[in-house]
Amino acid sequence: MARTLKITLAYDGSRFVGWQRQARGTSIQGLLEEALAPLNGGDPVRVAGAGRTDAGVHALGQVASCRLRSTLAGPQLVRALNARLPEDVRVRAVEEAPPEFHARFSARRKTYAYHLLHAPVADPLARAWMWLVSQRLDVGAMRAALATLEGTHDFKAFQAAGSRVAETVRTLESATLTVGPWPGLPLAVAPGADRPDGDRVAAVLQFAFTGDGFLRHMVRNLVGTVVEVGLGRRPPEDFHGILQARDRRRAGPTAPAQGLVLLEVDY
Amino acid sequence: MARTLKITLAYDGSRFVGWQRQARGTSIQGLLEEALAPLNGGDPVRVAGAGRTDAGVHALGQVASCRLRSTLAGPQLVRALNARLPEDVRVRAVEEAPPEFHARFSARRKTYAYHLLHAPVADPLARAWMWLVSQRLDVGAMRAALATLEGTHDFKAFQAAGSRVAETVRTLESATLTVGPWPGLPLAVAPGADRPDGDRVAAVLQFAFTGDGFLRHMVRNLVGTVVEVGLGRRPPEDFHGILQARDRRRAGPTAPAQGLVLLEVDY
Repeated sequence: MARTLKITLAYDGSRFVGWQRQARGTSIQGLLEEALAPLNGGDPVRVAGAGRTDAGVHALGQVASCRLRSTLAGPQLVRALNARLPEDVRVRAVEEAPPEFHARFSARRKTYAYHLLHAPVADPLARAWMWLVSQRLDVGAMRAALATLEGTHDFKAFQAAGSRVAETVRTLESATLTVGPWPGLPLAVAPGADRPDGDRVAAVLQFAFTGDGFLRHMVRNLVGTVVEVGLGRRPPEDFHGILQARDRRRAGPTAPAQGLVLLEVDY
Repeated sequence: MARTLKITLAYDGSRFVGWQRQARGTSIQGLLEEALAPLNGGDPVRVAGAGRTDAGVHALGQVASCRLRSTLAGPQLVRALNARLPEDVRVRAVEEAPPEFHARFSARRKTYAYHLLHAPVADPLARAWMWLVSQRLDVGAMRAALATLEGTHDFKAFQAAGSRVAETVRTLESATLTVGPWPGLPLAVAPGADRPDGDRVAAVLQFAFTGDGFLRHMVRNLVGTVVEVGLGRRPPEDFHGILQARDRRRAGPTAPAQGLVLLEVDY
């Protein structure tokens, strides 16, 4: 008898075409399905993912659901799957779920983070998962912009151009910005970097968005527009008008994929 | 007329044979020398590095010195070099130095960091620059072991086997261990991870060593042995005996290269 499973996984999205299977290229969904088949008596397994992350987007808490004919316990399945998956995809947990569980449709809430490295020069160790912005950024103005986004709004202006999703109202429970040193503060104290009291010191800016659902490119379009506020190119109040206009052309550019991480999905 | 330059650089050591030129493979020294030659009227340039980092070892504050016939100012040289270097090597600063300056011989002090990820499962985003240790670690015992290492000692037991350096006395100004969350705490709160109050929560352990000089593999051998203390396989007091015995076989294993970063060189 087949069991319904909830699989939590992390991946470095750098070399993938995204979560979803595509005609060409390697997808995380495809790799996971291939790793599951031998555990299902060799029969193909279809998995559903909570969030269809795009090419280059990472995950620490992506969730997939599937039905599997296997009697292995959760920790054994974790080991068996990780033995079959490449190093840039790791299964973190496998749990039993009720038969009706579906990773995408059962999700109540998701949290995405976006990491931006604020430093004079790129950091080779951060380039795979942060967006480098060297210009001066006004953190207060960006936080004011984020505050206007919290709540229930029509986010059509922040949906990828060409998207066909008709219902574009979403609730953003929280949209925050945390600023911290790059781990261990090495960049802040290393020679050649400006002093920690200046405003060109290396820092990590972590944007975090929690909401009931996200449109295609929504987080990256929000971050791209918030950074324009940080650069002084538009005032924080602009967001009211952009939301009301429901026009993609009023919002800012799409922030690069590599800064985005799907952190957590709540059920 | 040639000027003497001090070049500060960062690199992701993953794909390199190390700092130093080798018969085969790509070295950071080689790439930097190739990037400098066109700025020297096409004539070859020889650079000296402060620390000869091994294959897989990273740097955020490596320093190189050279003589260059160029009238470009520091910031212009930074841009010109970065335009010629691959993305995993970045020049952070170029400064004028006195004629007698030599990156290695003029160095007074170096700081290395070693990053260890303490989590149940590997993190794909951290795998390039952290060593994963999933077992329970006693942070207090590791700190006690590190304290016995501070000061002037004969570190022969921690030198790579086969090294021919005769003078193995070095002064470790500080040897510390800082424990922090993985940036943004995603792993600590993501589903499938243990709760933040448990002792298997995802955390980054940063070892930092500052000293007047380091033997080959010294930091990695120190970390490998300190982790054995953390795992309860040997008491912190063991370090007294290992230092006195001056025998590589008494110390623990060499920690993997990817966790090591040359942070800073002082002159």
